[in-house]
Amino acid sequence: MTNLAEQYRVTQEPFYQPQANEVALYEAAYNARLPVMVKGPTGCGKSRFIEYMAFKLGKPLITVACNEDMTASDLVGRYLLEANGTRWLDGPLATAARIGAICYLDEIVEARQDTTVVIHPLTDHRRQLPLDKKGELIQAHPDFQLVISYNPGYQSLMKDLKQSTKQRFVGFDFDYPAADLEASIIATETGVNKADAVRLVKVGAAARALKGHGLDEGISTRLLVYAATLIQAEVNPLDACRMALVRPITDDADIRATLDHAIDAIFA
Amino acid sequence: MTNLAEQYRVTQEPFYQPQANEVALYEAAYNARLPVMVKGPTGCGKSRFIEYMAFKLGKPLITVACNEDMTASDLVGRYLLEANGTRWLDGPLATAARIGAICYLDEIVEARQDTTVVIHPLTDHRRQLPLDKKGELIQAHPDFQLVISYNPGYQSLMKDLKQSTKQRFVGFDFDYPAADLEASIIATETGVNKADAVRLVKVGAAARALKGHGLDEGISTRLLVYAATLIQAEVNPLDACRMALVRPITDDADIRATLDHAIDAIFA
Amino acid sequence: MTNLAEQYRVTQEPFYQPQANEVALYEAAYNARLPVMVKGPTGCGKSRFIEYMAFKLGKPLITVACNEDMTASDLVGRYLLEANGTRWLDGPLATAARIGAICYLDEIVEARQDTTVVIHPLTDHRRQLPLDKKGELIQAHPDFQLVISYNPGYQSLMKDLKQSTKQRFVGFDFDYPAADLEASIIATETGVNKADAVRLVKVGAAARALKGHGLDEGISTRLLVYAATLIQAEVNPLDACRMALVRPITDDADIRATLDHAIDAIFA
Amino acid sequence: MTNLAEQYRVTQEPFYQPQANEVALYEAAYNARLPVMVKGPTGCGKSRFIEYMAFKLGKPLITVACNEDMTASDLVGRYLLEANGTRWLDGPLATAARIGAICYLDEIVEARQDTTVVIHPLTDHRRQLPLDKKGELIQAHPDFQLVISYNPGYQSLMKDLKQSTKQRFVGFDFDYPAADLEASIIATETGVNKADAVRLVKVGAAARALKGHGLDEGISTRLLVYAATLIQAEVNPLDACRMALVRPITDDADIRATLDHAIDAIFA
Amino acid sequence: MTNLAEQYRVTQEPFYQPQANEVALYEAAYNARLPVMVKGPTGCGKSRFIEYMAFKLGKPLITVACNEDMTASDLVGRYLLEANGTRWLDGPLATAARIGAICYLDEIVEARQDTTVVIHPLTDHRRQLPLDKKGELIQAHPDFQLVISYNPGYQSLMKDLKQSTKQRFVGFDFDYPAADLEASIIATETGVNKADAVRLVKVGAAARALKGHGLDEGISTRLLVYAATLIQAEVNPLDACRMALVRPITDDADIRATLDHAIDAIFA
Amino acid sequence: MTNLAEQYRVTQEPFYQPQANEVALYEAAYNARLPVMVKGPTGCGKSRFIEYMAFKLGKPLITVACNEDMTASDLVGRYLLEANGTRWLDGPLATAARIGAICYLDEIVEARQDTTVVIHPLTDHRRQLPLDKKGELIQAHPDFQLVISYNPGYQSLMKDLKQSTKQRFVGFDFDYPAADLEASIIATETGVNKADAVRLVKVGAAARALKGHGLDEGISTRLLVYAATLIQAEVNPLDACRMALVRPITDDADIRATLDHAIDAIFA
Repeated sequence: MTNLAEQYRVTQEPFYQPQANEVALYEAAYNARLPVMVKGPTGCGKSRFIEYMAFKLGKPLITVACNEDMTASDLVGRYLLEANGTRWLDGPLATAARIGAICYLDEIVEARQDTTVVIHPLTDHRRQLPLDKKGELIQAHPDFQLVISYNPGYQSLMKDLKQSTKQRFVGFDFDYPAADLEASIIATETGVNKADAVRLVKVGAAARALKGHGLDEGISTRLLVYAATLIQAEVNPLDACRMALVRPITDDADIRATLDHAIDAIFA
Repeated sequence: MTNLAEQYRVTQEPFYQPQANEVALYEAAYNARLPVMVKGPTGCGKSRFIEYMAFKLGKPLITVACNEDMTASDLVGRYLLEANGTRWLDGPLATAARIGAICYLDEIVEARQDTTVVIHPLTDHRRQLPLDKKGELIQAHPDFQLVISYNPGYQSLMKDLKQSTKQRFVGFDFDYPAADLEASIIATETGVNKADAVRLVKVGAAARALKGHGLDEGISTRLLVYAATLIQAEVNPLDACRMALVRPITDDADIRATLDHAIDAIFA
Repeated sequence: MTNLAEQYRVTQEPFYQPQANEVALYEAAYNARLPVMVKGPTGCGKSRFIEYMAFKLGKPLITVACNEDMTASDLVGRYLLEANGTRWLDGPLATAARIGAICYLDEIVEARQDTTVVIHPLTDHRRQLPLDKKGELIQAHPDFQLVISYNPGYQSLMKDLKQSTKQRFVGFDFDYPAADLEASIIATETGVNKADAVRLVKVGAAARALKGHGLDEGISTRLLVYAATLIQAEVNPLDACRMALVRPITDDADIRATLDHAIDAIFA
Repeated sequence: MTNLAEQYRVTQEPFYQPQANEVALYEAAYNARLPVMVKGPTGCGKSRFIEYMAFKLGKPLITVACNEDMTASDLVGRYLLEANGTRWLDGPLATAARIGAICYLDEIVEARQDTTVVIHPLTDHRRQLPLDKKGELIQAHPDFQLVISYNPGYQSLMKDLKQSTKQRFVGFDFDYPAADLEASIIATETGVNKADAVRLVKVGAAARALKGHGLDEGISTRLLVYAATLIQAEVNPLDACRMALVRPITDDADIRATLDHAIDAIFA
Repeated sequence: MTNLAEQYRVTQEPFYQPQANEVALYEAAYNARLPVMVKGPTGCGKSRFIEYMAFKLGKPLITVACNEDMTASDLVGRYLLEANGTRWLDGPLATAARIGAICYLDEIVEARQDTTVVIHPLTDHRRQLPLDKKGELIQAHPDFQLVISYNPGYQSLMKDLKQSTKQRFVGFDFDYPAADLEASIIATETGVNKADAVRLVKVGAAARALKGHGLDEGISTRLLVYAATLIQAEVNPLDACRMALVRPITDDADIRATLDHAIDAIFA
Repeated sequence: MTNLAEQYRVTQEPFYQPQANEVALYEAAYNARLPVMVKGPTGCGKSRFIEYMAFKLGKPLITVACNEDMTASDLVGRYLLEANGTRWLDGPLATAARIGAICYLDEIVEARQDTTVVIHPLTDHRRQLPLDKKGELIQAHPDFQLVISYNPGYQSLMKDLKQSTKQRFVGFDFDYPAADLEASIIATETGVNKADAVRLVKVGAAARALKGHGLDEGISTRLLVYAATLIQAEVNPLDACRMALVRPITDDADIRATLDHAIDAIFA
């Protein structure tokens, strides 16, 4: 079991710059083992934050990217057929409950309902995971905690968590970092000069202003880091911005023109 | 069999404060082995009540969180492939029928119809569970009782129990506890001081008044307990309320503002 | 085979009070081995009647609760994997055809079409059940008879039997028993005094008058028996009626008020 | 193989009274091994005709009741897992092609497309059935013929044969027998007196006149035979008609009244 | 491998009468190993043409009737479970690629997308078939060629090939043969006298004129051959035409009357 | 492992003529191991470009044609049943991550969501692929890079990448080559004379002008190469153009006429 825990240990401190008192609040939630829901747009740093907290708390972290084809068995475990009969294989949620890991279910709303219902007994006073198919009832390790992420921008009538699921979590709101902080993140991660980092943040701000006016989401910090990486590799900044900040996110000719003009103006 | 029953025994008295004569009425229903349906909103204590009754009656309790991907086999049982052929594994419903447990099907309307129809012969004068795939007919243990929960707020044209299922149960209505009782529950469970417990109940009342006016459900007692837990962990009460009572339940800016104002006013 | 037949033998005479000449008509249909369709609302005694006739005729009875996830294999049989290869397991319909049982398919319209088509060769002059997957053709035992139940209230465009299925049966119509008979049934089954039995029948009549005016179905005899059982267990009659006759069948506030008033008036 | 053919041999001459020159035409089609499509309403004698022709031609007959859950494998065959690996099991279509049987696919439109496409190479000059999963190409036995039935009343936009399937068959139209012939069939099959047989045919005519005016299909000859059977068993003719001719086919109160009046008048 | 190729060799020259220069054009396409798409209505001779070309070129021919339930595995291959583990079984497409056959996918639009996408790497400069499940990359035999058929009359928004599939083929258009040629085909194939062959072609022309005016497709050459076959078997020509040319293709009373009149007039 | 890498090595330099600075930009993206998205219409050279870059960079290339029936297991891997139990088989994505290949997911939008979500941890700072079913976490080889292709013309509300997927890539836009370049490609690949190559490019331009006016997509360079191939095989140019440039892409009579006129005029 110890070896399994080591495999999921975060061994290097992830680069994370706090935006407010979220680190202290998370520690309070973890100490009470309250289930946590992190909310925010794509690429704003939700996963990085959880990875950072797992490092800081010294707990293993098991991440699962949820999707609509994932079944409860993918989380809980299943029997494998082997030479001498079947063998049970714990899924990531069962493993996390056994070894006392933080289990991070990324984009939980994408999963089917049986996946979300299966977490219920782990998120109330019982802290249990029934393995119905194995006839076993796992009592969660004292260190176990459940974390889910949730992008409100995707929330739709068809795909939303049920209130009976939502009301099992405390919530953290995330957003893109403030301009200064974001420029500092970009410069620190890529080595790009501060002036270009500031310019990229300005491009990001221009794109984020288009959210709801032709863009589903603004440009993430991740894409700004991509652009800075290309600039560091001596790609022309205009090419770098088009490759990293325009072409991946939209094919709409008008939006592309608007973004191109912004880039030309900012890097002029 | 005895060992199996022990595994599902509720060994510690759950914390439960009766709201009316529901304990006596449940005992009458159990004594006649009438199937029971408990109704009420998320997190108002339905599951806790059944757990308490199982403890009080000294009967094992097997809980199943229903979901739309659950099949009848998940309840009744299935064959597992093993080294020397297949082995039958009872599902939770078959186990409950054999050992004389209370079988609690949580949020039954979420299940597919084959799951709901499979309980019919257990809920009339026959008290039988046919294991068609095994060719066995289980005659339920004299102590067996079936309990289902049901959240009327979720009832829709597409997902409702059929009358031929409903008319097999006697019903209990549940709701959030009265204010005094709820404050007492919060204080007892978390150790928070009485004044803060009363304030949290007021926040709960404000949120519940929004049900149907932007909120699908009010705030559950469970979330109020979460907030109190964070306050006990020396989190600022305003932060604790936002984390536990606002962010998890809505992303609507207006509703959030309304709730934030209520929290500010109550904790001022 | 004899043992199998014994397992499905109805050993105790079920309590059944005839409403008209249905017993004689059923005997005529059975003697000609005509397939039988019993129609009527939930809980009016259709299943009890078939159980009674099986007892009276001294034939085994195999009951299957149909549902929309049931496949033809669930009725006919399937191969199981075992240590030394696969083994065929007869489904309930094949078993009934072999041992000469009455096979009762409850709520047949719920089943998928492959389930209903599979009964065709058993319901015409051939009286055969082809086990395509096994390569066997069962010639039904001379005592075999097929019975299906059907609730016209559920009939919809999407879920109705095809004419090519319907035109293979003779039909029996059922309804709630007349008032005197129903009161006598309630008193006999539960031991409740005649006056309370009559009052409960009046509550039933009040609810049945609401069918189509807010209730999908009236209150079944079964629920009236539940209420009488609770009264016999010294539960207050008003509580017993609310538990057994109001809460399980509707969450509509107006209908509940109407039913509550009726109960108050009748038990005043 | 011979034994297999014997199992499907029609050993007793089925009762069949020709309506026109259909027997000679079928023989011509069979002699040229043209695939045959028989069309007509429920219970008018399509299946009986094919059974009769199989008897007359002295060929084995394999009947398959098609349904929407039937797969191509159900027709063609599949691998079964056994103690020493997998074993191929021919489906009914492959069996028929090997032994030279008439293969009768009843209600073909109910089947999924993969079932209908699989018959194509058997119905053109190739007369082959590729067993793709087995890697074998069956060349049909010289005696093999394919017959399908088809109820035009069910034809809908969603469920109709494709022209590329239809244009592989020659067609026979069937309908209810003329009145005299039908009365003679009823009397011969059940022993009922001629007068009652004539009355039943009149009831049938009355019901068939309602087709398209509240009834999806008229009353089949089979149901008239049921009613005659009950009358022979000394059931009151009015009861017999209601059981066999009214209740199974409709729940519409107006149609039922119309039919009841017709029965009363005819048997007065 | 040679034996496998022999099994799919077309050993007898199929009867085929060219309509224009399609034989030379096909040879040019085959010599460059360009993938070929043949288009045209049901029963106009597309499959016969490919069979003829395979004979003429001396290449094996593997035909697959596509359908909407066919999976990529049905084309590519799958693992079979056997006594000593699993064994890979090539599907028809993999077999064709290995032995250098012409692989003819009949009615490709009926197949699911995974079936159509799987042919992409076989239809560009790569000429490869990746067996992902086996971890093998088949380099197609130099003689391998892919042919698909396509009925433009079935083309709908829901079921059409994607442009990225279409743009991998060169196309051949087919239609019913000209009158003289068609009469000669009918007479040659069935031995019917020339006068009757000409009459049948006239019936075909009358029916084809109704395409789009009540008929989805005209009458195919195949059905005309059926009618001639019956006439040769001494069936009355009017009966033969009704059986082969009217009943199989429509149940519409008006269209049937129109066709019947045409037949009466032509054979008068 | 080395052998596996060799199997996917591009051993011959693919014919590729750069259109702008895309080769240098791709090298910059590869050097930073940024995930790449290539966009553009069918047959414009996207796949050829990636193959060329893999050759130039000397890295193995694993291509997967995505489709809507592809599951995450098809990419990641699965257990195979063998004589002595199950054996894990890496999918193409896992293989690429292990051996340090460029993994090219062609037409990624066709895949189901579980396929697209599974690439997320490979496309951020983690560069990991969790094999949940095997309980292994692959750390990608330093040479591994992910490339996806994307045809904006297919983009629809139902089938589009989520922003959380898009924002993990830098983008390259592709289009048909300029006229001179395209004629040179055609002449070089097929040996056709320059004049005919120029004429074919003119036909292509005429067809591309119809995009959005009756054609979903223009004619690809690939089809122009097909036509040139046929001309080189001494097929009449008009026949060659009709076979390769008209019949495969449309059945619309008007569009066909327009294209035929263009071809006649250009080759006059």
